[in-house]
Amino acid sequence: MSLEVGVLGYRFMGKAHANAMARLPMFFPDAPEIERSVLIGRDEDALSDAADQLGFDRTATDWEDVVDDVDVFYNLGPNFVHAEPSIAALEAGTPVFCEKPLAPTLEAAEEMAEAAQNAGSDVPAGCAFNYRFVPAIQYAKGLLEAGELGEIHHVRGQYLQDWLIDPEAPWSWRNDEEMAGSGSLGDLGAHTIDLIRFLVGDDDLAGDIDRLSGHLQTFVDERPVPGADGGALDSAGGDSTETKPVTVDDAYSAQLEFENGAMGVLEASRFANGHKNDHSIEIHGSKGSLKFSLERLNELEVLREDSRGYETILVTDEDDPYVEHWWPPGHVIGWEHTFVHENYEFLSAVENGDEFNPSFEDGLAVQRVLSAIGDSDERGEWVTLE
Amino acid sequence: MSLEVGVLGYRFMGKAHANAMARLPMFFPDAPEIERSVLIGRDEDALSDAADQLGFDRTATDWEDVVDDVDVFYNLGPNFVHAEPSIAALEAGTPVFCEKPLAPTLEAAEEMAEAAQNAGSDVPAGCAFNYRFVPAIQYAKGLLEAGELGEIHHVRGQYLQDWLIDPEAPWSWRNDEEMAGSGSLGDLGAHTIDLIRFLVGDDDLAGDIDRLSGHLQTFVDERPVPGADGGALDSAGGDSTETKPVTVDDAYSAQLEFENGAMGVLEASRFANGHKNDHSIEIHGSKGSLKFSLERLNELEVLREDSRGYETILVTDEDDPYVEHWWPPGHVIGWEHTFVHENYEFLSAVENGDEFNPSFEDGLAVQRVLSAIGDSDERGEWVTLE
Amino acid sequence: MSLEVGVLGYRFMGKAHANAMARLPMFFPDAPEIERSVLIGRDEDALSDAADQLGFDRTATDWEDVVDDVDVFYNLGPNFVHAEPSIAALEAGTPVFCEKPLAPTLEAAEEMAEAAQNAGSDVPAGCAFNYRFVPAIQYAKGLLEAGELGEIHHVRGQYLQDWLIDPEAPWSWRNDEEMAGSGSLGDLGAHTIDLIRFLVGDDDLAGDIDRLSGHLQTFVDERPVPGADGGALDSAGGDSTETKPVTVDDAYSAQLEFENGAMGVLEASRFANGHKNDHSIEIHGSKGSLKFSLERLNELEVLREDSRGYETILVTDEDDPYVEHWWPPGHVIGWEHTFVHENYEFLSAVENGDEFNPSFEDGLAVQRVLSAIGDSDERGEWVTLE
Amino acid sequence: MSLEVGVLGYRFMGKAHANAMARLPMFFPDAPEIERSVLIGRDEDALSDAADQLGFDRTATDWEDVVDDVDVFYNLGPNFVHAEPSIAALEAGTPVFCEKPLAPTLEAAEEMAEAAQNAGSDVPAGCAFNYRFVPAIQYAKGLLEAGELGEIHHVRGQYLQDWLIDPEAPWSWRNDEEMAGSGSLGDLGAHTIDLIRFLVGDDDLAGDIDRLSGHLQTFVDERPVPGADGGALDSAGGDSTETKPVTVDDAYSAQLEFENGAMGVLEASRFANGHKNDHSIEIHGSKGSLKFSLERLNELEVLREDSRGYETILVTDEDDPYVEHWWPPGHVIGWEHTFVHENYEFLSAVENGDEFNPSFEDGLAVQRVLSAIGDSDERGEWVTLE
Repeated sequence: MSLEVGVLGYRFMGKAHANAMARLPMFFPDAPEIERSVLIGRDEDALSDAADQLGFDRTATDWEDVVDDVDVFYNLGPNFVHAEPSIAALEAGTPVFCEKPLAPTLEAAEEMAEAAQNAGSDVPAGCAFNYRFVPAIQYAKGLLEAGELGEIHHVRGQYLQDWLIDPEAPWSWRNDEEMAGSGSLGDLGAHTIDLIRFLVGDDDLAGDIDRLSGHLQTFVDERPVPGADGGALDSAGGDSTETKPVTVDDAYSAQLEFENGAMGVLEASRFANGHKNDHSIEIHGSKGSLKFSLERLNELEVLREDSRGYETILVTDEDDPYVEHWWPPGHVIGWEHTFVHENYEFLSAVENGDEFNPSFEDGLAVQRVLSAIGDSDERGEWVTLE
Repeated sequence: MSLEVGVLGYRFMGKAHANAMARLPMFFPDAPEIERSVLIGRDEDALSDAADQLGFDRTATDWEDVVDDVDVFYNLGPNFVHAEPSIAALEAGTPVFCEKPLAPTLEAAEEMAEAAQNAGSDVPAGCAFNYRFVPAIQYAKGLLEAGELGEIHHVRGQYLQDWLIDPEAPWSWRNDEEMAGSGSLGDLGAHTIDLIRFLVGDDDLAGDIDRLSGHLQTFVDERPVPGADGGALDSAGGDSTETKPVTVDDAYSAQLEFENGAMGVLEASRFANGHKNDHSIEIHGSKGSLKFSLERLNELEVLREDSRGYETILVTDEDDPYVEHWWPPGHVIGWEHTFVHENYEFLSAVENGDEFNPSFEDGLAVQRVLSAIGDSDERGEWVTLE
Repeated sequence: MSLEVGVLGYRFMGKAHANAMARLPMFFPDAPEIERSVLIGRDEDALSDAADQLGFDRTATDWEDVVDDVDVFYNLGPNFVHAEPSIAALEAGTPVFCEKPLAPTLEAAEEMAEAAQNAGSDVPAGCAFNYRFVPAIQYAKGLLEAGELGEIHHVRGQYLQDWLIDPEAPWSWRNDEEMAGSGSLGDLGAHTIDLIRFLVGDDDLAGDIDRLSGHLQTFVDERPVPGADGGALDSAGGDSTETKPVTVDDAYSAQLEFENGAMGVLEASRFANGHKNDHSIEIHGSKGSLKFSLERLNELEVLREDSRGYETILVTDEDDPYVEHWWPPGHVIGWEHTFVHENYEFLSAVENGDEFNPSFEDGLAVQRVLSAIGDSDERGEWVTLE
Repeated sequence: MSLEVGVLGYRFMGKAHANAMARLPMFFPDAPEIERSVLIGRDEDALSDAADQLGFDRTATDWEDVVDDVDVFYNLGPNFVHAEPSIAALEAGTPVFCEKPLAPTLEAAEEMAEAAQNAGSDVPAGCAFNYRFVPAIQYAKGLLEAGELGEIHHVRGQYLQDWLIDPEAPWSWRNDEEMAGSGSLGDLGAHTIDLIRFLVGDDDLAGDIDRLSGHLQTFVDERPVPGADGGALDSAGGDSTETKPVTVDDAYSAQLEFENGAMGVLEASRFANGHKNDHSIEIHGSKGSLKFSLERLNELEVLREDSRGYETILVTDEDDPYVEHWWPPGHVIGWEHTFVHENYEFLSAVENGDEFNPSFEDGLAVQRVLSAIGDSDERGEWVTLE
């Protein structure tokens, strides 16, 4: 019997997850059977077109009608609609897969994590940190778990984009604190922080982040509002252009101290000229080091204990994580494949009533760090995480 | 009304094309509607499993029953079964998409090209050189057509793999001249030669290959035959292992002279240790240069006329070839996407009764070069292409 | 008439500067004539050997006998002997070239800068930040001054080494706060901070560093003391090994805010496994970006306004800074050449009674940043630079 | 007692060797003492200036007066003056260090090698293939000798420059067959061929080159002659410009077959746009692979038997070849250091009456390959080396 999936959100993330679901039968034949049942959104015309293209059976404009009706609920909407529908679904016993960051505020994230806990461990509540599911990252995780990097001394994470450099780039919900919670910090930094927790968060590696110092910056304070026709024109047809204030960060940085004494440096920006989607992680330990960059996601650079330099590994061998499902060695995969992997794992957890990681608890842990970075920036001092 | 597609071959290439067809509706909504109707093969059990997984309606063990029954015929079998079914399909007026190299011999390729010509220009006969459809290659083609590299002086093409280094790697049809035609030359070199023709073959660029000198080498002369159980064991259970002779090249190289005087150097190998699927193209002209490598297929390195060094371009911007169908800038695609692009183009040509390139004529032109390389190696002298 | 040069220090830096002086006549024929007159040190035997090898006329064990006797005084000793001899030389009207960091403490640096000012502008007092004299860095400076990067948003500087990872690596003066002032911060960070001031410190670029948050860490708290015989053995021949406490940082990081609002992130470490002398600088502006790495010091990566990716420039063309003195394009130079360039500039300033930059004032400005990073770390809060 | 050195040639190579000699005392204290005694050339004014700058005691315009007068003779003149003076020196029992290629013709090279043999093994006759003395190349040689690459299958060598792309670039002796022997082939290819012989020429590796196929091309047939004033102006002041024919190759390629069956592909060009001095070597063996590029000469990329990808080694560790003479790990050296190393080795051989490699015999062996490449190109067929 097929799992009926309801999905809120039909733009970028909607397409990424719908594609992932569509590809499971051919590449992961042991994945649970699913039905793309309901696509949820507000604009009925756009929604209907999207449902056609993304292969959904029907549409709905009110999530409340859906969350207890389906077997699985995907919350892929903007940050400010993460909490309420996800909590409602969980209260109805429906497993939830929610995009990151978990919520715009720490409070909302806490409520979501509580709802997940109340729903019980057989109702998976996943936070869609897809970069955990890059084969090279899973391979790196294996090296770290096996102790091949030794004692961890340094962690570095950058997520660089450049789509807001132009001061005339239009305002969107991503520039609004109320709707997004934060800017580059929540949108990009959340990914970095989750990866770092995933890779070195174990007690015998770096452990938790103990304390941190944060820095947020907004380079452009207001941006033009797109007109009704999608342009940035003055709605009155005059010379002046309507703008809205940018109330979130364009870039952030942070310094970290981990439980074991390791140091961390994080950064993200929407103003890093020349970098489109450049998410990189570097780790130095007493026995080895590693480097990863999302724009070359099939590769991992590893310094091994008995080596003199970084080895550039193409993580496309048959026994590399998830690779046997795809193509022969050297036939590289792309960004979207991370969604196939996470959907496979999440839906398998749903079918088996298993836990799924990254969970809402993981999403909350990331949110605590995001929130502490914001607090630290405001107070101008280091903040200790409880 | 859907186009009914019949596909011969259900292994590596079968999966690559089936996946491509399956993805068209979501990403290329204006592609013709198709039906994965019939999957053709010999081993009924394996075939049936494959048809289930790859989403075909039914199976057939005899291609003769299929080729005039379907609207499109895909020939994805080993090289030695390219000619007969493809010609039969074309004679029945069925468009054909055939994997590369077009045929194991020049004679067979000539017959196929003749059949294509007889079928008429509204019956597309395509040779599936998928690397033409890498966005970075299309972008490079645009630069070349615009004259941005100036007069072409040097062309370099390498296709490096290493899966046959181990002398105990098992014998397969790819090691047999009768079935494969040639080894690395036809399997890998065909791709390189097609790309070079595509990129610099225009008369105002390098033009045709005028003459060439070839070199073939077989490093391991015989290989163990896999046992009935898939292993390389002696079928009698004794100490000795049955082997078969390797009658094709493990590696080839060639020197080219183009019509305009440009020089070319080609190479492919199944013994290039550390290289999994490393297909690279480099071109130097009087105004600029470019470099491409398949293992980093989202990137193109371009030396522009007013620049001092190569610019590393991530060919993932919205207005880059095919990219608007996929994801935002910096969200890289993989090897398999080249199949989606070529299937989109081929099936659109079928629907519209248009020509499709690379055609059987292109496949034959490549075959002439492959054949000349072999002749040159045998005769120990330069060979002029007519 | 030759300038007589007296040099304090005959180890690593002594050799680097002696070599630089020796090479001037052949490669910079318009450099002032100099005499390597006196080499100053304590250990007479080692000193005498060094003087022979490095081409000095004589030796001295007391700098006080030298500083007013020579035409130029080079202070290449450990940090804790920077202040007194340099000040004495300046008080005697002798130009001084002092290694970096200028001093172990802010107070000492202030006294040195004051002595330089008192000596007058025709008595150059230089701080030997040699990386300003890498051709690629000078080329980058030219781009920045010409406004080619636009408004500066991000600055990133890392100096990664790994020579202290082994906890048994012996203690030296570099691990002692009294003698060195700080660890990686002063030794490596001083270079990074000077480069950043040099590159983006102008008012129409990022301007001064306004405020910062620092983080210091010591991973190994005590280290074995080398025995009299150079080993790390217990001097009594027993089982136990004598150790000394490490009182400086093994690594530091810092977050910066510049006058124009630009953000900076700095890091240095002696525990960055796999990195030997990896000093890198990255800058993102509204029109372009650039990247430099010392281990590939002949290269500069530049994103230009009309480009899509970084261009890898080999800064070895005839009209690149300093290059015409050396070899034809593509014939790369090494780390030591930066010393030739700075000696050429410094000695020319001495001969002409000109100012030389980086000056003691520049050394002091760096020291203020180093000191603020230390203060910030202690206080756990952002520190504003006056 | 100092060795008196006489040097013919005072331009590019003169400077490179004079610098090397000047640096020996400081960095190779056990090198023999030498005197830069005589600098030989034709243009007395230019020669006198050069002698001053390069530190020679005196000048001479006739090599015949010098070759039996000095203890060592360096022949750094254009190719067409390699033979006669070198042979005269050897006949006088004077050790000779001659720039590459050994001679413009095979016949001249044979005579030179014969003269070297007649002079006896205690009179070193060296051919200055300086790239053997790159630390990374010596390190590679060590790996190969230790068998770490296993059986050699592929060798690839490219030497790419671009200084002749402009058809108006002036004619020089390097474009003349009589004076230079060949173009890119002898100037650049000689280096590549020597490196390949050095690295894989041993019998238990690839062995000698057995046979080859060559290809030469001249892209620009005539070039303007620089005027008396150094410009390319018409000497009569008119509109027309005097030109001379280019009688050598602008680029060459070759395919090789080694004794052990390994395949080789060589290339050099003066038309490889964007490449200044890009000499690269790649070797694939059954156990490993390696890559080297002269523009990053401190690095070597090595695929080891138990590795999955190339390891980027910075060959600047203390125990790497020649490195202990220079700087600490990570402090990179430049192109010119290869001359210091070869001068150290050659002059030590002179002092000790030892053989020196690469010898005239090595120079002759390279010349045989150069000559065979030319023959093969003319005859349009493979040529077997005796």
